[in-house]
Amino acid sequence: MKESNLKKTSMLYEGKAKIVHETDKEEFLIQEFKDDATALDGKKKGKIKNKGVYNNQISAHLFSYLESYHVVTHFVGPYSDNSMVIKRLDMIPIEVVMRNIATGSLVKRYGVKEGTELEHPILEFYLKDDAKHDPLINEDHVLAFGHASEDEIKQIKRFAQKINAVLKSYFHRRNMYLVDFKVEFGRGKSGQIKLGDEISPDTCRFWDTESGAKLDKDRFRHDLGNVEEAYAEVYKRVFK
Amino acid sequence: MKESNLKKTSMLYEGKAKIVHETDKEEFLIQEFKDDATALDGKKKGKIKNKGVYNNQISAHLFSYLESYHVVTHFVGPYSDNSMVIKRLDMIPIEVVMRNIATGSLVKRYGVKEGTELEHPILEFYLKDDAKHDPLINEDHVLAFGHASEDEIKQIKRFAQKINAVLKSYFHRRNMYLVDFKVEFGRGKSGQIKLGDEISPDTCRFWDTESGAKLDKDRFRHDLGNVEEAYAEVYKRVFK
Repeated sequence: MKESNLKKTSMLYEGKAKIVHETDKEEFLIQEFKDDATALDGKKKGKIKNKGVYNNQISAHLFSYLESYHVVTHFVGPYSDNSMVIKRLDMIPIEVVMRNIATGSLVKRYGVKEGTELEHPILEFYLKDDAKHDPLINEDHVLAFGHASEDEIKQIKRFAQKINAVLKSYFHRRNMYLVDFKVEFGRGKSGQIKLGDEISPDTCRFWDTESGAKLDKDRFRHDLGNVEEAYAEVYKRVFK
Repeated sequence: MKESNLKKTSMLYEGKAKIVHETDKEEFLIQEFKDDATALDGKKKGKIKNKGVYNNQISAHLFSYLESYHVVTHFVGPYSDNSMVIKRLDMIPIEVVMRNIATGSLVKRYGVKEGTELEHPILEFYLKDDAKHDPLINEDHVLAFGHASEDEIKQIKRFAQKINAVLKSYFHRRNMYLVDFKVEFGRGKSGQIKLGDEISPDTCRFWDTESGAKLDKDRFRHDLGNVEEAYAEVYKRVFK
C-alpha cells in the first residue's frame, strides 16, 4: 500500500492536540497533529507554531525506531507534513507515565526534590477522564474498572519499560535527558496490545544535558518563552 | 512472660487514636487505644465513648485469629481493658487499603457506583503523610521512595490478601460485609514483615448484611448517629 493513496473520509474524533480521520480503508486512520496546545487541566490554551508538523514527524520517526526494537505500534507511514497513517486501535483509556527524573506532579504530590534522578524508574497509570481530572490509579483499579486484563497490563508495562530504556539512550545520545513521558496503548484487530497516540515534546519532558534547559511543553505550561524554538530544537536533534 | 507484669515507661508516640508506650523490656511496647476520633483529613474531631476499650479488644481478638492463619502480627497479649502488649516494629509509613465493595474515595475519585461489589478486590497503597493528605501511591513509588523492597512489597500484598480472605468470611458469618479496611505493616527485629497497628471499626467499614446499616467510623464521619452503639454492636458480634 502507498499510504498517500488513502482517502480521508469522515472525522472520527477531535482531541486537544490531534484529529483522527476515517479513511476509505476500514482498518486505517489518519492522525493529524494540530498546532493547538492546552495545559494545566485545560485551563491554559494556545497555539504553538509548526507544532503539528514537528510532532507528527518526531512521532513517526520514534514509532519506526521503536518498531525496530519490537515495540509494536499503530504507525503505518507518513501521510502529509502534519499527519500520518495509523492502524485503527481499540484504545485503552489510560495514560501510562514513565518517570526517570522527579519533576511535575511527583514533586507537587509527594514532595520529592525537583531533579532527583530516580534509582528505579516509576511507572504510573492515570485514568483518562477530564471530568475527574485524570486521577492516578493502580493495576487493581485498571482490572476492577475493566479497562485491561492482567495479561494486557503485563504487556503494557513491558512495552513502557522497553520504550523507556530505548528512548532514554536515544535522547541521551542527542544531549537530552528523557525526564518522563506519557504513552497510550490500544488493541489491534487480533487483540494485540500496540502503542498508539504520539511521542513528542507534547508528551515527553526533555532537558538539555548541558544547560538543563527544558525542551518540551513545560515551556508553554509555565510561560518560559521560546516555545516554538524548543519544538524545533528537538526536531533538529532527532533528524540530525 | 506474663504481659501484665511489664511496666510502662516513657511515651514513644501519640497518634490521633492511640498512644504507644515504651516498657521496661526493649522489644515490647504497650499500645493504648483512645476514645478520641478524628475524620475528614483531621477537620472533624470528637470522642466516641468506650471506643478505646472496644477497639483494643476487637483488635486483640482479630490479631490472634489472623495468627492462626499464619499472618504474623505484632500482637503479644492483653495488658488492660484499653491496651495491649505489642512487639516493637520498624513501621513502614504506608496505609494498605483493601476494598471489596465500592464506597468512599473509590466513588468520589473514580465515579464507581456506591455499593458496587468488586469482582477483584482492590489493593491500594497510601503514603502516610498528613501534610500531603495521604496521597495514593503505587508499588513503584513505594520502591522509589525507599519505603520497602520488592520482596517486602510482595509479602505485604500477600498478607493483605490473606487478611481480606480470612476476615471477609469471618465477618460474613457475623452478618457483616467487610466493605474495606486499612492495615499497616512494619519490620520485626529480624526484618520480618508483620502486621501492626489495629483492626477495628476505626479502620474497617462494616455493613450489616440484612439492613445495610453502617457499623463503623462512617457513622462518626457523616454524623449518622448511634456511633457508640455501632462499635458496641461489632464488639458484641465478635465476642458472641
